[in-house]
Amino acid sequence: MLAPVGLSADPAALVAAAGAGDRRALARLITIVEDDRPGALEALSLADRSSRGASRMGITGAPGAGKSTITDGLISAIRRTGTDVAVLAVDPTSPFSGGAVLGDRVRMQDHVSDGGVFIRSMASRGHLGGLSAAAPKALTMLEAAGFPEIIVETVGVGQDEVEIAEAADTTVVVLNPGWGDGIQAAKAGILEIGDVFVVNKADRPGVRDTVADLQGMLAMDEQTRWTPPVLTTVAHAGEGIDELWGEVQRHRAYLIEEGLLQARRRARRRGELETALVAAFRRSARRVLAADDGDGVAALVESGEMDPWTAAELILSRERASSG
Amino acid sequence: MLAPVGLSADPAALVAAAGAGDRRALARLITIVEDDRPGALEALSLADRSSRGASRMGITGAPGAGKSTITDGLISAIRRTGTDVAVLAVDPTSPFSGGAVLGDRVRMQDHVSDGGVFIRSMASRGHLGGLSAAAPKALTMLEAAGFPEIIVETVGVGQDEVEIAEAADTTVVVLNPGWGDGIQAAKAGILEIGDVFVVNKADRPGVRDTVADLQGMLAMDEQTRWTPPVLTTVAHAGEGIDELWGEVQRHRAYLIEEGLLQARRRARRRGELETALVAAFRRSARRVLAADDGDGVAALVESGEMDPWTAAELILSRERASSG
Repeated sequence: MLAPVGLSADPAALVAAAGAGDRRALARLITIVEDDRPGALEALSLADRSSRGASRMGITGAPGAGKSTITDGLISAIRRTGTDVAVLAVDPTSPFSGGAVLGDRVRMQDHVSDGGVFIRSMASRGHLGGLSAAAPKALTMLEAAGFPEIIVETVGVGQDEVEIAEAADTTVVVLNPGWGDGIQAAKAGILEIGDVFVVNKADRPGVRDTVADLQGMLAMDEQTRWTPPVLTTVAHAGEGIDELWGEVQRHRAYLIEEGLLQARRRARRRGELETALVAAFRRSARRVLAADDGDGVAALVESGEMDPWTAAELILSRERASSG
Repeated sequence: MLAPVGLSADPAALVAAAGAGDRRALARLITIVEDDRPGALEALSLADRSSRGASRMGITGAPGAGKSTITDGLISAIRRTGTDVAVLAVDPTSPFSGGAVLGDRVRMQDHVSDGGVFIRSMASRGHLGGLSAAAPKALTMLEAAGFPEIIVETVGVGQDEVEIAEAADTTVVVLNPGWGDGIQAAKAGILEIGDVFVVNKADRPGVRDTVADLQGMLAMDEQTRWTPPVLTTVAHAGEGIDELWGEVQRHRAYLIEEGLLQARRRARRRGELETALVAAFRRSARRVLAADDGDGVAALVESGEMDPWTAAELILSRERASSG
């Protein structure tokens, strides 16, 4: 649904309205910051200042593992406690993943009539770092709108998605029975990113081996006092979802008790600054290239007379010399 | 196999050796440019100048579609014509894709004893744009080493991989029977990126429907004189590989006849320049952040006193003011 034409575009008014529970203002704000429209920076600055600090849970896993069904179950579990919840579902715009957008998201629409639930899909589109740049902005808006619980759902097939999982306080990794052996799991790096592991579709064969494999590998990591639990769910039947929500809360309590929550959030904000700075430099790069027509370095690269990397250094040094 | 310690690290000597057929020098050069080690820029500049212009074929598709088996078959088909071939296999470092590295790549090692074949795996690792920045450099080295045929194999699940497919003259998209319907294929954007489509595992049911669906959708695009052919293969049995190689050559002839090959390569080089420029600006961003300890903007962001986006603009403007 498009925001009505009459809705004010004034960033301060929109942030105030979103904070007061106006969902259309919130949707509008996310679109503004996602597309980097006029007023985006002011809106982000205001929203960041008025943020009340949500709990952020990341859910990631391979396509088809059941992330959306689990998210759907978690929404219901959270709502039963009377708490509002927002979901940012990041769908890759990959040529091979159209299904997620078309299919799984439909189920969550059951919650559309519930004013305590806000669901936003975000495509990971465009070029370098587009996703990583936009998601933290949308999350800042959701926090400013006062949601105490935020779920970030990502398809765990690319570096972008891992980065977004890192934006969460607690990351839930969803697997299925028969997913590789323990050594492969270790090699693939999933042991490092998960705080809670879920073997979904636990009504299928092989679940016991997968759980045992994971537990064996996780027990070997003695770096922290938190050993990630391995749960089983049959998400489409609602089995195991309350237990999952309980483990997420237990992890959150652990972070607070150990004084780790603040450290995680400080590191996250520093990462957001680096991402924002890269985006700002990228805009500089595009502007420089667009203005290069007279200069001709790009033409030399296109014709093969200069290599792209030497040209980049040359443009950068000229840019610096001229911007003083 | 690691390069021997005695191998010279002088970029000019390495590029000359690689061009003369020294595979260890080539492997060393790719490592140098991939890791941005000292001498990388000089090596790239020299390699770009001595490049003899290879034909680049991209192969992309979902995990498990059979890309590596097809690549393996294409290597054999190309080698039967007496032509040398290099393969750059880009494996995402996703937490969920460890299998590709461990499994499929093993088959290609059959070609290890063949001096006319060079296979290099590259992990898509690290942060924003790491993959996109490194792959064109490795491809430049492969061209400088004189390989007339280069295959770039990528897992088509992320934007990075699509960008690398764009680095090819001819892109082959590998699907399997039953992969979605035509509308979903169109929605997912695969029709745009493929020059040749392959329905692999054609011994499975549903192949005729998948082929007909694809052909129907592809026939609707009348923007160019090239209608991408839809082939069927049973790659593990070697069926259809020669026909695929024939279609790739036919597409190449079409590009040359229509004068499109040069345009594609010019556009690719411009894209490489933009990527290189973004990487150069990113290094600036990191350097600025590392030097910010006294300045304190990063600390303000971490403590929540300033939002990351305002801080990025502030740092950028200071950087520009100080670099003149």
